[in-house]
Amino acid sequence: MSQPQTAITPRRDEDFPEWYQQVVRAADLAENSDVRGCMVIKPWGYGLWENMQRIFDGMLKETGHRNAYFPLFIPLSYLAKEAAHVEGFAKECAVVTHHRLEADGRGGLRPAPAAELTEPLIVRPTSETIIGASYAKWVQSYRDLPILINQWCNVVRWEMRPRLFLRTAEFLWQEGHTAHESAEQALQETDLILGLYEKFARDYLALPVITGEKSEAERFPGAVKTLCIEAMVQDRKAIQAGTSHFLGQNFAKASEIKFQSREGKEEYAWTTSWGVSTRLIGTVLMAHSDDDGLILPPRIAPAQIVILPIAPKPETRDAVFAAADKLAAELRAQTAFGEKISVEVDKRDIGGGTKSWEWIKKGVPIRIELGPRDLEKGTVAVARRDRGPKEKEFVPNAEFVAKAGAVLEEFQAGLLARAAAYRDQHTVKIDTKEEFYAFFTPKSSDKPEIHGGFALAHWNGSSAVEEKIKEDLKVTIRCIPFNAPEEDGKCILTGEPSKRRVVWAKSY
Amino acid sequence: MSQPQTAITPRRDEDFPEWYQQVVRAADLAENSDVRGCMVIKPWGYGLWENMQRIFDGMLKETGHRNAYFPLFIPLSYLAKEAAHVEGFAKECAVVTHHRLEADGRGGLRPAPAAELTEPLIVRPTSETIIGASYAKWVQSYRDLPILINQWCNVVRWEMRPRLFLRTAEFLWQEGHTAHESAEQALQETDLILGLYEKFARDYLALPVITGEKSEAERFPGAVKTLCIEAMVQDRKAIQAGTSHFLGQNFAKASEIKFQSREGKEEYAWTTSWGVSTRLIGTVLMAHSDDDGLILPPRIAPAQIVILPIAPKPETRDAVFAAADKLAAELRAQTAFGEKISVEVDKRDIGGGTKSWEWIKKGVPIRIELGPRDLEKGTVAVARRDRGPKEKEFVPNAEFVAKAGAVLEEFQAGLLARAAAYRDQHTVKIDTKEEFYAFFTPKSSDKPEIHGGFALAHWNGSSAVEEKIKEDLKVTIRCIPFNAPEEDGKCILTGEPSKRRVVWAKSY
Repeated sequence: MSQPQTAITPRRDEDFPEWYQQVVRAADLAENSDVRGCMVIKPWGYGLWENMQRIFDGMLKETGHRNAYFPLFIPLSYLAKEAAHVEGFAKECAVVTHHRLEADGRGGLRPAPAAELTEPLIVRPTSETIIGASYAKWVQSYRDLPILINQWCNVVRWEMRPRLFLRTAEFLWQEGHTAHESAEQALQETDLILGLYEKFARDYLALPVITGEKSEAERFPGAVKTLCIEAMVQDRKAIQAGTSHFLGQNFAKASEIKFQSREGKEEYAWTTSWGVSTRLIGTVLMAHSDDDGLILPPRIAPAQIVILPIAPKPETRDAVFAAADKLAAELRAQTAFGEKISVEVDKRDIGGGTKSWEWIKKGVPIRIELGPRDLEKGTVAVARRDRGPKEKEFVPNAEFVAKAGAVLEEFQAGLLARAAAYRDQHTVKIDTKEEFYAFFTPKSSDKPEIHGGFALAHWNGSSAVEEKIKEDLKVTIRCIPFNAPEEDGKCILTGEPSKRRVVWAKSY
Repeated sequence: MSQPQTAITPRRDEDFPEWYQQVVRAADLAENSDVRGCMVIKPWGYGLWENMQRIFDGMLKETGHRNAYFPLFIPLSYLAKEAAHVEGFAKECAVVTHHRLEADGRGGLRPAPAAELTEPLIVRPTSETIIGASYAKWVQSYRDLPILINQWCNVVRWEMRPRLFLRTAEFLWQEGHTAHESAEQALQETDLILGLYEKFARDYLALPVITGEKSEAERFPGAVKTLCIEAMVQDRKAIQAGTSHFLGQNFAKASEIKFQSREGKEEYAWTTSWGVSTRLIGTVLMAHSDDDGLILPPRIAPAQIVILPIAPKPETRDAVFAAADKLAAELRAQTAFGEKISVEVDKRDIGGGTKSWEWIKKGVPIRIELGPRDLEKGTVAVARRDRGPKEKEFVPNAEFVAKAGAVLEEFQAGLLARAAAYRDQHTVKIDTKEEFYAFFTPKSSDKPEIHGGFALAHWNGSSAVEEKIKEDLKVTIRCIPFNAPEEDGKCILTGEPSKRRVVWAKSY
């Protein structure tokens, strides 16, 4: 049986990791730079990030958070203040040791020995310690609390095996850092943010994420409790798409964030931190795209509709271009999701087929072709990215304008429903060790990505079990899900009693 | 004669540099961090930057520019590619030499010797060279041009004498980098951007900037032509508030950005770069503020109106708070400058006087006090930040709501007019060396900031003259202004013939 030809080679079922790279490239989202592990985010990819930023920033502000900006550099001694934290981050960081260059005598440059720093600086891998130093100064009394601050910035973690968006040495993110009077309030904040992440992922990115708590082994270094959202992508692996940490008083103690309580006692603050990053772009790609390239949820697409005027003959060009501009203006006056529809008109002088395929690969939800014959008939040819690349519907112009918003909304809902169905299809309750091992064992050594998906299985609560399973199968507990009912069961590995199934999966 | 007491000590006329630091602190804009030269931008300061970003980003997008993101790190060899550029930037940069830490055996950490990078990385001081490396890959043909890309990011220049916002080791900025087919198109872009900067400064920041070209000595390292906007602040010094560089083919040659021209020949692209930074916040502060603290142009204020419910007695509190919320809602439904008015209600339980002074120092354009008696009368007490701190006007509630937008617009126009009058008052045509030297010589050694202002004087075009004047007076040519008429004159220092007056000033 011959497979239909696709725009992306290889297909998902042939080589998922390579398919991913090819979709990133074909959509012109990003590329590797000459600096190891650092990516260049190209305009189409950055446009996605801008939309994500705008939306999530609005959600943060509505819940009383404000943005600020803290230094890029962390003194080495700060990083060392929290024991688990330094263990987690010192292994992979960029270290600044000099503040000047000089000629090396061979026509090149070298760090000037006379300009060596007394204390090396770390390029922030995350900012708990540097922000903690500020909070320590800002907080004296319970009246100064809570502090609800977020920052949008770049961070650097030296990655040995980088992959565009999913794991890069430098990435962009938001990191929220809050300080509270009581454990209860800090826990509420941790929950509130996880709720925002879930809503953001579900309603905007069309990602039906699972929410829950990390096991101790998978916690953020220094956290008391790490909550997370986990997405399933099309190779059935999990991607940790966002985390919200309750830090207890660990970082407050390390940074000396103390305050006079309502009772007049000196106490350490209770802090939280939480973040989502450009990794979300890779997650959206892996969750929704197909063998013809990217498919974007309309709510975050840099353009929701692209109009392609088809006018090969010079004598019809002006009329077709004018009609395209008119249609664009009419569409921009419509709304989808309560906001103006975003429309691009592509008048570049290249072949219609090439042009159309470019936008397919870029994942624009709706393509409109408009040629001289359409003008005569008063119709447009509408193609949806969630249908086959050759499927077109000819619709009267005015009818399309009137329903464009509804089509985009239906498209968005359809993506979410499809991703949820896929996740459910590949999420299986497993009760025996044999079945569990079989579930995660690839059928072919050529395609290690093809395995079962998410396993819901009992666990005795021990890190040793996690370690063994990680070693055997590269499978970890993604989370102890919030919505799992209490039930009597037996640990998948040891047979010991367990009260709750946890989510096991391979992950990025 | 006794001076009235002011909220900021010292006053501007007592010690301008210290006044500046105190206004920054009193407005809660930013503070120094423990990392030398790196500042913490606090929520109120960052809110200003967010507004500036939003506005200028819109102007860039309207003119066909798109955002992208390039690596933080520049390989040392890249920086060295353009001779003037490396000379200008290698002296003051953060150098990353290691990618891992290890225990130092004394309970601390040190850069791991085994993790030394083969090639050190520079934290970007500006991104011409790293972006050029990408453009070299993206551009093959004239069809790939122009490239019109901007990025919002952090950059680092090791500053020996940092000052909050004006000169910090790390700062935030936008840097645009464009590539074109011809010198003419690149020059047009350079001009277009300068025009946007001028408009942005004038219409939004209320800064009546002078526009012009830098002399060769003041050009960006590696540029063929540097255009700039220069603001006068209240110590009569100049602040370079934005620059737009025509880079000729210098960086295209260094980065090998080559393309096949329309004529089929291989040519180097013509590039530009341009930027404005968080320095604008310091400029706005120094231009508009007074001895009671910050005064913000309404178009960029994080809040345009603050409502202060005054309800010391518990029994009236609910009614006053409800009225404050109602008023806020009514005001938010009004527009100023074609956008919704931004309003904050400050219900904190602190004294009315303290609260009012906080907002004065933060520079909010309009303060509304609302107490139980106002409720009875249906009036509000309106105080404008561009008038004395005790001047209040009692206005019927509905009347104020109806005219709030107009008041804000008038406020904005007033700030611009005042700054323009100040600039004009302290800009003087000078034709003799004696007068020139006297103009720039402080009357008292205690207050080096008190001098004449901007001098419009003739110049023979020689860098030697600039050097001599800089050495004698710390005065430089801020720009060769665009609007200067051609006229016969004599160089202020040498008496040699000159065709045009240039702008001389002390500067930050």
